[in-house]
Amino acid sequence: MTESLGVGLVGYAFMGAAHSQAWRTAPHAFDLPLRPVLAALCGRDQAAAEAAARRYGFAAVETDWHALLDRDDVQLIDVCTPGDSHAEISVAALEAGKHVLCEKPLANTVAEAEAMAAAAGRAQARGVRSMVGFNYRRVPALALARDLIAGGRVGEIRHVRASYLQDWLADPAFPLTWRLQKEHAGSGALGDLGAHVVDLAQYLTGQLIAGVSGVAATFVPERPVPGGEGRTGPVTVDDAVAFTARLETGALATFEATRFASGRKNALRIEVNGSRGSLAFDLERLNELEFCDTAGFPGTTGFPGTTADPLTQGFRRILVTEPGHPYLSAWWPPGHVLGWEHTFTHEVRDLVTAIAQGTDPEPSFADGLQVQHVLDAVAASAAQDSRWTPV
Amino acid sequence: MTESLGVGLVGYAFMGAAHSQAWRTAPHAFDLPLRPVLAALCGRDQAAAEAAARRYGFAAVETDWHALLDRDDVQLIDVCTPGDSHAEISVAALEAGKHVLCEKPLANTVAEAEAMAAAAGRAQARGVRSMVGFNYRRVPALALARDLIAGGRVGEIRHVRASYLQDWLADPAFPLTWRLQKEHAGSGALGDLGAHVVDLAQYLTGQLIAGVSGVAATFVPERPVPGGEGRTGPVTVDDAVAFTARLETGALATFEATRFASGRKNALRIEVNGSRGSLAFDLERLNELEFCDTAGFPGTTGFPGTTADPLTQGFRRILVTEPGHPYLSAWWPPGHVLGWEHTFTHEVRDLVTAIAQGTDPEPSFADGLQVQHVLDAVAASAAQDSRWTPV
Amino acid sequence: MTESLGVGLVGYAFMGAAHSQAWRTAPHAFDLPLRPVLAALCGRDQAAAEAAARRYGFAAVETDWHALLDRDDVQLIDVCTPGDSHAEISVAALEAGKHVLCEKPLANTVAEAEAMAAAAGRAQARGVRSMVGFNYRRVPALALARDLIAGGRVGEIRHVRASYLQDWLADPAFPLTWRLQKEHAGSGALGDLGAHVVDLAQYLTGQLIAGVSGVAATFVPERPVPGGEGRTGPVTVDDAVAFTARLETGALATFEATRFASGRKNALRIEVNGSRGSLAFDLERLNELEFCDTAGFPGTTGFPGTTADPLTQGFRRILVTEPGHPYLSAWWPPGHVLGWEHTFTHEVRDLVTAIAQGTDPEPSFADGLQVQHVLDAVAASAAQDSRWTPV
Amino acid sequence: MTESLGVGLVGYAFMGAAHSQAWRTAPHAFDLPLRPVLAALCGRDQAAAEAAARRYGFAAVETDWHALLDRDDVQLIDVCTPGDSHAEISVAALEAGKHVLCEKPLANTVAEAEAMAAAAGRAQARGVRSMVGFNYRRVPALALARDLIAGGRVGEIRHVRASYLQDWLADPAFPLTWRLQKEHAGSGALGDLGAHVVDLAQYLTGQLIAGVSGVAATFVPERPVPGGEGRTGPVTVDDAVAFTARLETGALATFEATRFASGRKNALRIEVNGSRGSLAFDLERLNELEFCDTAGFPGTTGFPGTTADPLTQGFRRILVTEPGHPYLSAWWPPGHVLGWEHTFTHEVRDLVTAIAQGTDPEPSFADGLQVQHVLDAVAASAAQDSRWTPV
Repeated sequence: MTESLGVGLVGYAFMGAAHSQAWRTAPHAFDLPLRPVLAALCGRDQAAAEAAARRYGFAAVETDWHALLDRDDVQLIDVCTPGDSHAEISVAALEAGKHVLCEKPLANTVAEAEAMAAAAGRAQARGVRSMVGFNYRRVPALALARDLIAGGRVGEIRHVRASYLQDWLADPAFPLTWRLQKEHAGSGALGDLGAHVVDLAQYLTGQLIAGVSGVAATFVPERPVPGGEGRTGPVTVDDAVAFTARLETGALATFEATRFASGRKNALRIEVNGSRGSLAFDLERLNELEFCDTAGFPGTTGFPGTTADPLTQGFRRILVTEPGHPYLSAWWPPGHVLGWEHTFTHEVRDLVTAIAQGTDPEPSFADGLQVQHVLDAVAASAAQDSRWTPV
Repeated sequence: MTESLGVGLVGYAFMGAAHSQAWRTAPHAFDLPLRPVLAALCGRDQAAAEAAARRYGFAAVETDWHALLDRDDVQLIDVCTPGDSHAEISVAALEAGKHVLCEKPLANTVAEAEAMAAAAGRAQARGVRSMVGFNYRRVPALALARDLIAGGRVGEIRHVRASYLQDWLADPAFPLTWRLQKEHAGSGALGDLGAHVVDLAQYLTGQLIAGVSGVAATFVPERPVPGGEGRTGPVTVDDAVAFTARLETGALATFEATRFASGRKNALRIEVNGSRGSLAFDLERLNELEFCDTAGFPGTTGFPGTTADPLTQGFRRILVTEPGHPYLSAWWPPGHVLGWEHTFTHEVRDLVTAIAQGTDPEPSFADGLQVQHVLDAVAASAAQDSRWTPV
Repeated sequence: MTESLGVGLVGYAFMGAAHSQAWRTAPHAFDLPLRPVLAALCGRDQAAAEAAARRYGFAAVETDWHALLDRDDVQLIDVCTPGDSHAEISVAALEAGKHVLCEKPLANTVAEAEAMAAAAGRAQARGVRSMVGFNYRRVPALALARDLIAGGRVGEIRHVRASYLQDWLADPAFPLTWRLQKEHAGSGALGDLGAHVVDLAQYLTGQLIAGVSGVAATFVPERPVPGGEGRTGPVTVDDAVAFTARLETGALATFEATRFASGRKNALRIEVNGSRGSLAFDLERLNELEFCDTAGFPGTTGFPGTTADPLTQGFRRILVTEPGHPYLSAWWPPGHVLGWEHTFTHEVRDLVTAIAQGTDPEPSFADGLQVQHVLDAVAASAAQDSRWTPV
Repeated sequence: MTESLGVGLVGYAFMGAAHSQAWRTAPHAFDLPLRPVLAALCGRDQAAAEAAARRYGFAAVETDWHALLDRDDVQLIDVCTPGDSHAEISVAALEAGKHVLCEKPLANTVAEAEAMAAAAGRAQARGVRSMVGFNYRRVPALALARDLIAGGRVGEIRHVRASYLQDWLADPAFPLTWRLQKEHAGSGALGDLGAHVVDLAQYLTGQLIAGVSGVAATFVPERPVPGGEGRTGPVTVDDAVAFTARLETGALATFEATRFASGRKNALRIEVNGSRGSLAFDLERLNELEFCDTAGFPGTTGFPGTTADPLTQGFRRILVTEPGHPYLSAWWPPGHVLGWEHTFTHEVRDLVTAIAQGTDPEPSFADGLQVQHVLDAVAASAAQDSRWTPV
């Protein structure tokens, strides 16, 4: 009988729902070495937490997250709260010997993220694992993109072009929620959306960002307070950021994150241009990867017969649903597409496997801290006339 | 406490896996009036069935489907077997007072389908419900398409253009599986793929097909017998079919179903052209619906300010992930896409809701029979020099 | 000094404008062995013809086409009139020793087309050349498609899927022009649009259509007479046709031509599926060819390094603007796209080259006649319950 | 009889060919108030210039551009030389009373551009006109985009996202041509490609760029000297640039220009996001404009019936070939696409019309100078740690 892994979830909104779905589904899709058990859900509002627990399938409810750390039936804490509590909960959980999956961005400040990475390092020595939830690494198309780049299929990298465009703030009447308040969210589009594209750019290329130059804007500085009877309050985070960057090897990169791109609902787009080819991805077409192979498979030369025949060159639309594609053998026949929520199921698979094997899952808290350093450099540059800021 | 609905699943291959995922997921995504319980899975190979039951989460195993009918903890039989056993199992189940969800095509022959529809009619009088699994009706983009057509947004229908293109038989070395044998599968691309597009064409337009003219081909007549040490056997079904049709009101329609369209993995495409606009859909981009509005909202006239301004007219790509779109309020924020498997989850939701409310779910066995009549007419026409054949 | 080739143009509407543009442009883009001279334009309305001659750059005007045949400065007659006069003008011109470029469809009836092909045969013996204007053969992307198919890159052909969709008749208030009258146009969508896709299907595959089964419809049977003060008259041609077909080697084909596909402006689409790959084209994106290579270059085996690596397979969008692509070396650098009118310029280049070299240009009048036979078979089948009709 | 306008062309390479095509074609497509005459072509190599004159249709040849200024049959000088001679030729021509069309970028330095703008100002007082060849303003889809923005259809502008991606330098073996030498080209991707997107961003939005922060890279610093028997020389211009910017009203903009984006042949892309909608364009699909209308036509409210119905919202692909679209009434029926070269034909139309009407054509030399200021600011910022640099 497979050993169980009790999960204690903190936070039960959007991310809590998505994580729960993954914890429930992963063992039915994959052969997991540990059997996840939805042990307890934690939320401060008892009634709401109980309703969520019923909906998501959790066996118990706590209203104080500290209580989760005392439960013997919980071996892993899944942190789905706003960013301002990530550090406190995660550090305490790791010190209590619980594995931790923490949503991104890792923290609201570099200082918090450093504390978390340090705690993760100490915990690791005791066999306690931690992972930050950059779920888009587990989009099969992006995992394939990384494999192709690592295999030399795009050659030496020249350009990365990344943007994450949403539009839910385009309407000035949208209310002033916690995501628009610096004390809760840390930053706006930068941390929420920019964190994803920074992580992906580094993950896909296998290179770190060496320096940045950024600009930021808050287009709508005041918004209605929810339940405020017409009162408004100040938006204290960025509505949008844009920044240029250089990777370690000198490639140029451009980044943009915004909640004001009317008509773009969840357009995380990333393109990588190299000396041998290019890759392009759009999250709104999650099952597709575009690949243009301009120089052929490394080690082959000339054409025809190779992938580089110039007369038939072009961006090919790979439907990433073949059994040989990352994560796909667990799912459906070719052409039967996956959804956004599958990224979390894949995350759970990899995390549970790492825990069982006693290895460190990726991305680590250290990876999350490094992304935080990049975001911090962007904010610093934006505050200082876009001055080039090394990471 | 919500009453439970015990599910007995017959067949545990591709469709069994997809249905199980739906039964497990639906109650966590939707507020269901009955709580599905995965009571028992039935398969002739005890060991394989037990492995499947563990993987899919079923509580018990049977090796004879008759045994499912005797179980008090089973109120619904989910038929996921090849087409040659649909009729026997479904009729027996209905007569035993079990609700039935039967995979498509309803049956291998019109005679079987008639028997099933008759049994469904008798059962209905006793409050026993039945549904045939044309799951693509529950793609949100297609449900939206139907709503738009029903609301008059494309006007009088002139053309339907439907195809279902796959390529898994393009390789002549692909083995002779049950799907290529008439005695098990009834037909080839016609019943497997054509059934879907026939049902969709009628569902979307709200019109029946009045007559057809068909052609069929078997491109690779002999294939290797699995485990046959090099022996080959005859393919006794169609590799591909094409047919023209007229709808009740005189619209022209074209249909094609094939397993030989190299590079097309799961390309169910359907386009509807009407006097006021057009709609287009491709299952490989399941979350998108293309809509071209050429005459504006009925009742509005002229432009600008209406949707019909000719200078800004064009096929718009609707990302069908808004809360107001069919089924979407249960899922994620705008732009967070769904996958193929969600169609089954939606099917379960609608079926369970109908059972609880005492209404008849759609598509009914009678609908399945009607599709069977269309497929039969196509086969008859193809066998008789493509002669026009009324349905 | 290059010898000149005097052109006499009959008809100065849409096609006359397009042909004139080609005659003027070709010598500046290509090294032509003969120098086209726009000698005379013929139209029955003297004032209108003179205005057209000025606009198009013709040196002289005639109001009777017979006069063109007497002119020594005219060596080629370019027939851009409605279909009902193609035969008379072309036959007379050929007999007068003038080369002929005749717009498609070759004629309104098979009998006329036969007379024209016979005249072309007789003329050929005297070194007089003729060509029918299926201009889409000279879309670079389609010429490339033919090259790829001829080179074995898609293998054995299984399917052709062709449609030509326009929408200019969707509005019932559109007037009853000559194109809607059988006595002038011969047929409706069938001859106007269907002729193009029939020619292309055969040109691309190098195979003839062996038989067809067709349906036709006239959705709006009465339309306003132009200048008729509210009177209407009967539409005597088809608004739309659909037909299935088999090619010589047994491939299945589907065809559709319509003027009622709301939102489709000039959507000539053709897809070819073969045992080694597929090609797809859409005239609205004239500079692009989609190619999916599923089995690699003939003679190469396995992967990676070949074009057939299954993990990176997909329809690639070839931007057909490379110097090595058909016709492209005469134009602009890669990525600088061509327009619809370039097809005529390429037609002129090939025709002038053939005349100078004393070879027969393609497509010949015999090719035009063969297309006419196919269209005739479609019409016959549509009139006889879609019965299969050999060509 | 229409008065003539004698054209003297300096430079006969790529741009000379494109301009010649436009001068020849415009009077046949449009009703021009002056009749362009290809009077004389100037090139330093007599034989090559004569060959070009024959090919392009010029009546005479000069080998010194000063001679063009003395010709009475020349009223307009068309400057198609590399950027280092733009200023000298244009200023002399204007002072000689000749109208000037000068290719972009206006000059290699701000000082030269200032001299040119000053000369243009003096000439204007004498009725002598000048225009800089930002031809992409005359892409019908972009002219439509400007109209939509000017009409309030995207509302208050939040973001501009512009890139111009080519790949012809990705191969390190590509030789060291004049375009890679600062003394001839002024800059690399910045002036060649960046100039276009800077002009377009300002043209479309009707706003100037207020400040920039830039980075630049030269990925391949040494390349083979043409005819240099293996010798290499230094690349003295940028291979790629990226910059962020703010428009006058606070909108954020990102720009990128590169010749190293493998597989992107001529991908000039620009997207504008506003408070009421968004527009997107890609030069590789020159006939299409994408428009997402999220808030409806200004002055209308709510939905349905307006363009803003949220359930049918999406980027619509407008095929910009309708008679009502900019420039289109002169060309072909809907759906018959134009090519890249048509932008020059439209440029000629507008220039000739302005000359005849005695008005100033756009974009003026002052506009060209302003773009030069932006490019200069980008270069300055890139040289100074990306520091924010006002324009």
